[in-house]
Amino acid sequence: MRFHERPVFPRGFSCAARNCGLKPAGEPDLALFYSEAPAQASAVFTRNKLPGAPIVVGREILRKGVLRGIVVNSKVSNVGTGAQGIEDARRMGRAAARELGVPEDEVLMSSTGLIGRRLPIERIEAALVGMKAELQSDPLVGARAMMTTDRHPKALSLSVGEATLTIVAKGAGMIAPNLATMLAYIFTDAAFEHDVLDRMHWHAVEDSFNMLSVDTDMSTSDTCAMLANGLAGPVPEEEFAAALRAACIRMAEMLARDAEGATKLLRAHVTGAVNEVDARTIARVIVSSPLVKTMAYGGDPNTGRILMAVGKCVECEIEPDRFRAWVNEIPVFEGGVRLDYDEDAVRRALSGDPVDIRVDLGLGTARATAFGCDLTHGYIDENAAYSSS
Amino acid sequence: MRFHERPVFPRGFSCAARNCGLKPAGEPDLALFYSEAPAQASAVFTRNKLPGAPIVVGREILRKGVLRGIVVNSKVSNVGTGAQGIEDARRMGRAAARELGVPEDEVLMSSTGLIGRRLPIERIEAALVGMKAELQSDPLVGARAMMTTDRHPKALSLSVGEATLTIVAKGAGMIAPNLATMLAYIFTDAAFEHDVLDRMHWHAVEDSFNMLSVDTDMSTSDTCAMLANGLAGPVPEEEFAAALRAACIRMAEMLARDAEGATKLLRAHVTGAVNEVDARTIARVIVSSPLVKTMAYGGDPNTGRILMAVGKCVECEIEPDRFRAWVNEIPVFEGGVRLDYDEDAVRRALSGDPVDIRVDLGLGTARATAFGCDLTHGYIDENAAYSSS
Repeated sequence: MRFHERPVFPRGFSCAARNCGLKPAGEPDLALFYSEAPAQASAVFTRNKLPGAPIVVGREILRKGVLRGIVVNSKVSNVGTGAQGIEDARRMGRAAARELGVPEDEVLMSSTGLIGRRLPIERIEAALVGMKAELQSDPLVGARAMMTTDRHPKALSLSVGEATLTIVAKGAGMIAPNLATMLAYIFTDAAFEHDVLDRMHWHAVEDSFNMLSVDTDMSTSDTCAMLANGLAGPVPEEEFAAALRAACIRMAEMLARDAEGATKLLRAHVTGAVNEVDARTIARVIVSSPLVKTMAYGGDPNTGRILMAVGKCVECEIEPDRFRAWVNEIPVFEGGVRLDYDEDAVRRALSGDPVDIRVDLGLGTARATAFGCDLTHGYIDENAAYSSS
Repeated sequence: MRFHERPVFPRGFSCAARNCGLKPAGEPDLALFYSEAPAQASAVFTRNKLPGAPIVVGREILRKGVLRGIVVNSKVSNVGTGAQGIEDARRMGRAAARELGVPEDEVLMSSTGLIGRRLPIERIEAALVGMKAELQSDPLVGARAMMTTDRHPKALSLSVGEATLTIVAKGAGMIAPNLATMLAYIFTDAAFEHDVLDRMHWHAVEDSFNMLSVDTDMSTSDTCAMLANGLAGPVPEEEFAAALRAACIRMAEMLARDAEGATKLLRAHVTGAVNEVDARTIARVIVSSPLVKTMAYGGDPNTGRILMAVGKCVECEIEPDRFRAWVNEIPVFEGGVRLDYDEDAVRRALSGDPVDIRVDLGLGTARATAFGCDLTHGYIDENAAYSSS
């Protein structure tokens, strides 16, 4: 397992991007991803009960478990658009399939951006014509077209034996467990049976994107799809699963760091829980707490907020006299009591990046890590005036 | 039922306030409340699993169900202080009981402020000596001494027949359901049996303070205590219960409006839910959503965030094609589809105070209302540097 300095596509994958008028001229807002060979495909979609049209249609598409392409637009999410939205999503997928020359039910479509606006479907259809000729090998070209409030395009690659694993993703707000507002596409040329791919994908997402919380707001459009076209042949499952998990965690951290207004990565590590549900719940609550997040932003050692956040988990097993906490390995609570720590050292820790908060519950062996970011003036700036920007 | 223009105490209640050195000289930081006659008492405490020492001791005190006094300090919350904190809380209650000349187990103590600092118990004990002679009739004197980041002291009164009902409270951050970071004391001279008082109190808190969310962070110190000293004799239960509920809701709204950085009250009204749990959950999630809160701050009509927030409630029954939403009575979603509404009208509604978001699920008859506020630069300012201020 080795991360590349620059992201590249695995064998047989490529992408293209164009402007279809959703962003100002010259800024790409439409991405097309392509696999030369049919790829085994697995996808995890948002659990939001009022999902976007691409999620509803995407769930149908994924039943077949094979993908040749993905088409994505930014700026308009095709959510809250009713039957018209469903029809628009289908038209977008059909137009991409036509351009790529692949079956209609092997193209996934995603839309990210404002809720409640209709897709400019005619312009998207027109823009797709001729894109196949522009397919090229830099994943960042596709990543850039998917961006909404992201500050920079996000992609990463690593090698696992002869195979390559590449993730292209966008954040950056409305990110919360199950999932983030997030589109993530995982491409590999390793060969896997569908059920193996599905299982590895689900496990990796559970420990990474599903432990990522920017603002507790769960998007209506979240999608994480994984495509394995097999062109590099088989790879040992255990080795690949470890690489996939590491890659997803690294991308989750990249998304957290580039979240709306964020100035740093915030991680919560929970150990000693009686079970994994408790460990995961508490870790996510810590990185989601506005008071913990503003503490990380301000660099002010008000560590009682960690205790408060843990105690909020009223359904979890917590014993006050077992509770211990650390900030970047500096002990701050022991047996439920605040320690007489060096405030300047904690201040320095909180002022750095990343901030690692560790909590031990002293009750069992279950553990979990959650990923988040600080809560800043920049977040307010971006979200107090988003639709008009 | 009639709200007073200025808060007054019911018969037999009074309070005093002093500075014991926790705030700068001249600013009161210690409040003492007194009832001439033994009062039937009921209390609701935070559900946080790592509660402060005053909560642990307060639960014992309330077993008797009778109170003569309450002693409160601000700036230090006596949380995360272990066995020493328990002893300090007991000493604080004993010192107040001694000063008031009442039994030790009839005085409730509360502390609000920073977590993880020891109470300056000797100074508190010394400051309590002689306070009984300073008891006076203005509830705002006690309210002022309880303030932490509150911008102004909060108290209200209303008449129910011959009886008076008065609430003295403080907010203003770390407020979330079950309960808010909040101290609220409800005083009345109406006479009630203990079990009737308990039931009325619980119901009123459920519809008011437990539906209040400033930042989803549940304090380690929340307390809502109710004292009925009976000096005005009996009052019809139904009439009193309605008045109590209205008073608690008005105080919850005052707390929301004065929350850290808030510029306006945000209310979410959910109707048509299949059951009350769903209605309450969805209402609270709407007022807790950072993206809805920043929309209310910015006045920008990005109403898709309402749909997103409702959809986050993955455990609730929600049908996309039944979903309807309004902003201050302007319809914005119908059958899950965004309406072609007048954006300027919605912008004006969001720019006002209060902002009322109504959601109808079209599935049943259950309803609920939640109270919150906008999320602003001011919140970040206050919380990125609290312990050092």
